[in-house]
Amino acid sequence: MQRSFTSSRAAAVDASGIRKVFDLAAKMKDPINLSIGLPDFDVPDIAKEAATAAIRRGDNRYTQTQGIAPLRERLRKELSTEMGRDVGEVLITSGVSGGLFLAMLACIDPGDEVIYLDPYFVMYKHLLSMTGGVAKPIDSYLSFEFPAEKVAAAVTPKTKMLILNSPANPTGAVLSEKDVRDAVAIAKKHDLLIVSDEIYEPFLYDRGTTTAAAVYSPAELYANTLVLRGFSKSHAMTGWRLGYAAGPAEVVAQMTKLQQYTYVCAPSAFQHAAVAAMDLSMTEAVAAYERKRDMAYDLLRRKFEVEKPGGAFYIFPKAPANTTATEFCTRAIEKNVLMIPGSVFSARDTHFRISYATSDDKLAAGCEVLCSLV
Amino acid sequence: MQRSFTSSRAAAVDASGIRKVFDLAAKMKDPINLSIGLPDFDVPDIAKEAATAAIRRGDNRYTQTQGIAPLRERLRKELSTEMGRDVGEVLITSGVSGGLFLAMLACIDPGDEVIYLDPYFVMYKHLLSMTGGVAKPIDSYLSFEFPAEKVAAAVTPKTKMLILNSPANPTGAVLSEKDVRDAVAIAKKHDLLIVSDEIYEPFLYDRGTTTAAAVYSPAELYANTLVLRGFSKSHAMTGWRLGYAAGPAEVVAQMTKLQQYTYVCAPSAFQHAAVAAMDLSMTEAVAAYERKRDMAYDLLRRKFEVEKPGGAFYIFPKAPANTTATEFCTRAIEKNVLMIPGSVFSARDTHFRISYATSDDKLAAGCEVLCSLV
Repeated sequence: MQRSFTSSRAAAVDASGIRKVFDLAAKMKDPINLSIGLPDFDVPDIAKEAATAAIRRGDNRYTQTQGIAPLRERLRKELSTEMGRDVGEVLITSGVSGGLFLAMLACIDPGDEVIYLDPYFVMYKHLLSMTGGVAKPIDSYLSFEFPAEKVAAAVTPKTKMLILNSPANPTGAVLSEKDVRDAVAIAKKHDLLIVSDEIYEPFLYDRGTTTAAAVYSPAELYANTLVLRGFSKSHAMTGWRLGYAAGPAEVVAQMTKLQQYTYVCAPSAFQHAAVAAMDLSMTEAVAAYERKRDMAYDLLRRKFEVEKPGGAFYIFPKAPANTTATEFCTRAIEKNVLMIPGSVFSARDTHFRISYATSDDKLAAGCEVLCSLV
Repeated sequence: MQRSFTSSRAAAVDASGIRKVFDLAAKMKDPINLSIGLPDFDVPDIAKEAATAAIRRGDNRYTQTQGIAPLRERLRKELSTEMGRDVGEVLITSGVSGGLFLAMLACIDPGDEVIYLDPYFVMYKHLLSMTGGVAKPIDSYLSFEFPAEKVAAAVTPKTKMLILNSPANPTGAVLSEKDVRDAVAIAKKHDLLIVSDEIYEPFLYDRGTTTAAAVYSPAELYANTLVLRGFSKSHAMTGWRLGYAAGPAEVVAQMTKLQQYTYVCAPSAFQHAAVAAMDLSMTEAVAAYERKRDMAYDLLRRKFEVEKPGGAFYIFPKAPANTTATEFCTRAIEKNVLMIPGSVFSARDTHFRISYATSDDKLAAGCEVLCSLV
């Protein structure tokens, strides 16, 4: 028998759930695809032009590992204004995924416990498998609010990190001010690092309205917060691999060192383009997505139990009571509608994730099909 | 006392050696910088135009994790032709650094032993610290040839991987056909995975000449070889973060899964540009570097014990007998010449690395200063 050259670390990352969906998708002809986690618009022209100008003038070499100074300085300034305090050091990462990975490598020793809400972004689980951390997902059904008592009860002496994700993937849920304050209180009490995954922060629909919460980010209240944000989702640059981390100097310094010996730096020309992108208002794109959110919610609530999402571009309805979400998704696929069963993001297989980042026509048609299946 | 949020994994990566050099460099005004490991020319125009065209037409989203099909298929075909056998699956990575990192994550369990030659590319050591692997560097001074007997003697039942790096950083040494055959024989006998870091393969100066070796890559002889190459050095795209891995399906599949949950994919537009870059001949750039190699060698051999490098853009002379390399580098810095002491790449502190990827004027001036110090 031939020797296996692969590690138990690799084997521990079980990606079979999402792979099944993609395998099914590959067999579909022109599906109504409500499974895709990226915007349906293109990068704004100003950012494209800034990227091409950087390439032409020769900004094609490694940058400093931490990223180019104009981008880092501006991000630190703007984030600090937003948070009402100095947010700490800034590192430019290869997408928020890259930031999450470096955060885990830099912080998590085997056996360290990490708390996050279930449903969760699937990468959290896999990154903990890779680094030997112990995942402590806390059920947040059916409201997807922060279950402060359950979280507090889950803390042990081994708990090191609390991951928050607001607006959330896959639910679109946004933490309320109370949720954020509760989370920070627990973190403070037990001296936990909060990793605040805010990749969907640009898609926060009540921002600036009278119903807006006074506090969105735990970084506004708690210095031991590592904020992770990126341009991928807001500016449709998923392929540009551009995110950033801001937080305690100790943590960011270790992440920077580890980036130096793994991925070296984020793509150079796109870092320059990001500076230009920061001047852009994405209000119109966000308004269009808010309208799609309303549309999906109004269409689906007729037949499904569903929370109105406050952000991101996902909605997470409950499958009919007599079926698992996986079975329901299989029935939808038979009708040419592709979406992701909640079991991919959760211990429960009761809900399904719809991305409304698609055309109005496809979204309406998809929701009609789903309603017809109930 | 405040709790530390960082991991012992992060602490284990000791980057102090190179940091000292960079700290010194930061204090220098317009140094003769012979420390930089990247080309001094810019990305060829055809590749720039292909990148900007991809950005403009909207190739800005995630690609498949394994990379775009036209690039992967072409690489597989060309590599297979070169190696005289199917090289296996191809994965597009975020630079060769990204490929090395994924290879270690995918293959190395804590306690697994990995053999490589000393002097070594510094990332090997750090990646093993991160993944819990045990580094087994084998002294290859003074010739930097493959010390087959010492390598064979270092193999234990825990040995899993043999890393080869030809042309090598920091020595510029190229493995001879005998070296490659010896390495493959050991790997075959003990069922080891060979990771062949061939990032400098484009800078292989005798290729196509009458003195060229009949065999360069272990992948020509041994199926359990993971070849890592990239466009960064040959096409001056260090900031584009573009490399590739080719090898056994089992290993590449695990690397692909881990890339999906870490850095997702290599930058999209640059993958498209790489297809265009493959049509380019870099012969002129390589010839210019060969000339610089000759120049550096001829200037330095007057005063230093030095091997003539067969590739890459480094030369690795021995410091004068009465001093350590670190002391000699400090003396050079006092004369405004920046280079890297061998201790950064080695258990020995006897040699120093010069990158001749700089202008002829600076290279000549730098070598003159060094000779004057002897």
